[in-house]
This record gives sequence, C-alpha cells and structure tokens, in this order.
Amino acid sequence: MHRFYVETPVDSDKAYLAGSEAHHLIHVLRASVGMEVVLIDGSGNEFDARVLHIERRSVELEVITRHAIDRELSFPFTLGVTLPKGDRQRWLVEKAVELGVHTLVPLQTEHSVLAPTPTSLARLRKVVIESSKQCGRNQFMHIDTPQSLETFQQRPTQESLQIVAHPTSGIPVSSIGDLRSSTLVDGLPVFAAVGPEGGFSDQEFEDFQRASWQAVSMGRRILRIETAAISLVAALTLR
Amino acid sequence: MHRFYVETPVDSDKAYLAGSEAHHLIHVLRASVGMEVVLIDGSGNEFDARVLHIERRSVELEVITRHAIDRELSFPFTLGVTLPKGDRQRWLVEKAVELGVHTLVPLQTEHSVLAPTPTSLARLRKVVIESSKQCGRNQFMHIDTPQSLETFQQRPTQESLQIVAHPTSGIPVSSIGDLRSSTLVDGLPVFAAVGPEGGFSDQEFEDFQRASWQAVSMGRRILRIETAAISLVAALTLR
Repeated sequence: MHRFYVETPVDSDKAYLAGSEAHHLIHVLRASVGMEVVLIDGSGNEFDARVLHIERRSVELEVITRHAIDRELSFPFTLGVTLPKGDRQRWLVEKAVELGVHTLVPLQTEHSVLAPTPTSLARLRKVVIESSKQCGRNQFMHIDTPQSLETFQQRPTQESLQIVAHPTSGIPVSSIGDLRSSTLVDGLPVFAAVGPEGGFSDQEFEDFQRASWQAVSMGRRILRIETAAISLVAALTLR
Repeated sequence: MHRFYVETPVDSDKAYLAGSEAHHLIHVLRASVGMEVVLIDGSGNEFDARVLHIERRSVELEVITRHAIDRELSFPFTLGVTLPKGDRQRWLVEKAVELGVHTLVPLQTEHSVLAPTPTSLARLRKVVIESSKQCGRNQFMHIDTPQSLETFQQRPTQESLQIVAHPTSGIPVSSIGDLRSSTLVDGLPVFAAVGPEGGFSDQEFEDFQRASWQAVSMGRRILRIETAAISLVAALTLR
C-alpha cells in the first residue's frame, strides 16, 4: 500500500495532501476517488485513508483507521557522525532511517569535510520522510543541529552504552553484546560516534576515552564515512 | 599515498600505467618524474613505485618494493544478492569491497528486479577496482556470473555457515556468533543470501531451509536490498 506524508498531524477524520505528495498521488499514481492509501505524520501512527476529493494540487482524504504500529528499535540510538559530501550524505541518512536510528547528530571535528548548512539539513530532513515512507517507519529520525565534538561527547547524561568507531584499534563489534549485557539493562540508550575518513584526531580520540566512550574496531580496510556509520549501526542494532 | 591499478601483474622492476589510470596520474595529480605512488595488481601485494618516464597517455614506473599486505577477512565470505538498480547496485558493490566480501554472486530469483548484463557486470568490476584503490584492499572482490537460486543454494560444498536474510523472522544476527562458535571452526567459509525487496518467494525460502540455510531476522523495517546486504555483511564481519 502506498504511503503518504501529511504535514499536519492527523487528529480528525479528514486529512489533506498538498505539494509533492499530492502531485505523486494525483499524477504518478493517477488516483481516483475511493482509492485507499496509508498516511503517516511522524507521530508513530499510520492511518488507513480513502481519497474523497481531488483538486488540481491537493487531495482530501477520509481517515478510516488509526494504527499505532511500532517499527522502532527497542532502545534509543543516537548516531554522531561527520557528514560526508553530496550523494553519500543523502545515502547515509536514508540508511540510518531504514536501520532505525533515533537521532542523527552532525559532528564538527578537526578533520570534518564540511559544515552542513540550514539548506542541506532541510534537504536531509526530506530524505528522512521519503525513506520513512519507503521502509515503513512511522516515527521520523531526528536530525539534530551540528554539534562540536565536545558537546556530543558529554551528551550521554544517564547510564548508556557509548561507542566510538576507531579505524585501527578497539574491541570487535561482536564483543559489544557482552559489554552491554554485563553492564547495562537492555533498552538503555546507545550512542555511537563515527569520524571523518582521516579519523578523529589523537586529541579528539583521547577526549572520547576520557569521557568513557568504548572504542570499537572497524576492520583492516579504510571505510568511507557512510560505510563505517551504517556498518556500525547495523552491527549494533540487528540483534 | 595514491594507489594505482596496473592491469598486468607486477612481476619485474618496471610497471606501466595506461588509460584512465595514466590520465589520473598525469593530468589530475600532475605527476613529475620521481614522484612516488603505490601500485596494486589484485594479486594481494602492493608495490611502492617511482615515476620514471611520462608519455602523453602512459607512464613508466620503477618498482621499488613489494609488500604482501593482507587486508582480507579471516574467512572467505560469499554474498549472493539480487542486484538492485542503477546507483544502488554500484553502491552495494563499493561497500561489499570495503567490508571485505570475497565473492559477490548476482542471484536470479522469482522477484528479481533485473538480470545483470555483461556490460553492467563489466561496469561493476571497475567499481571493484576503484573501491579497492580507495579502501586499501589488495585482493579484488570477485563478481561471479549471475546464478539461479538453486545453483547458489547448493554452492557450499564443505562445512560452512549459511545465512539467509529474512525480513520478518529468523534468529537475530547477534546469535550468529554463538551458532558459529558452537558448530564451526573460525576460518571456515560464510555464505549469505539477500533477496529482492519483496523477499524470496515462499518456495525459494523453503528451498533455503531444506538446503540447511539459517534464516536471520533483519529488523522491523523494510530494508532496501543494498541496506539489507551491507548490514548483514557488516554484522557478520565486524568481529
């Protein structure tokens, strides 16, 4: 069933699509009155709805049923990452959504490739919506404002698992489970940090260790930022 | 240090770059005589080399030292996957190289999106070389000819771990380690199979189970082909 994003939270028996969502429904899918679709509003619910009325640039729908369907991870996952460039950035966000990341924090580091602009962040938030429609997620991944590494390192305030990817040393990802079960209750927050391709600077890495982040090894090859980030997320969440 | 691919195996103290590799060295990096680079030929070695002579479309180099640097996984990993379309296909191959996959087998399944052509396979083999240059890998991932699912399912002939990704059921990936250590010696081959977005058909999935493949769960969301494949590879190899 096709999924559409409604900007205004659905809280009555009517909903409206406008802009590109309406365009897609009207012109790509050639909707007719009575057609059934699924609406999401990022609230965690999805809604069965039926097309009531089609205008040139908007669609009115009747909301039939609300489903509170939880496709989230069983623990909140925050990924801090230096954003790569262009397509790779878009791709990283798409995959993070698919894998259930709760919050993505763009990190400003010594070797960062670029500082995200408000425009690029807005573009990435659109990717979040597109990807959520596609993968069946009903809560949107939050993309935070860019943060200094210092701020991010101090972000975990309660008991949590804090993992920093290190290209060449650290425990294998497979040991994280042991670490987790020996020290933590399941459901507690997980924070992961992935640096730029040159890695975090020595000073930055020391700061992580001083702030009690656990280094994990990323294998023998040089992973691109988005590969390291998605690999780490996958290894920590497919459990 | 910049890495260049030499098509002819390096077995003397001279090596030659031509085509796009020569172009890159001459025109992008503006090479001059004496400049040092690293050569790879896919043999598992890398070679320090020095520019001897620059022609318009080719470069002669002196091979200084051979290094047998192993950046492979500690076990052979074969990934069977229904190739997604366009950029996603390229991306999947790039990431599989970075993560150390030994052999990628394009699978022909009931719900396959497309059959790879000799041209598209040739293009993907170029991606393997580019990605190997970038990630420091000295042995090239092998891209096999497309195979029927039946052939692939019967491919493991010796003791091995055989994993099939299943969107909605199966053991968590985190249990694979236990499975592995309880039944297998480390270093034995791992085979993984990832189906199209609609999943393997019921019949195909049954065939996997009959051929003793273990189903693993891929979480609550619908993962795109390339996300499922790379996530599974990451979860099985970052150990």
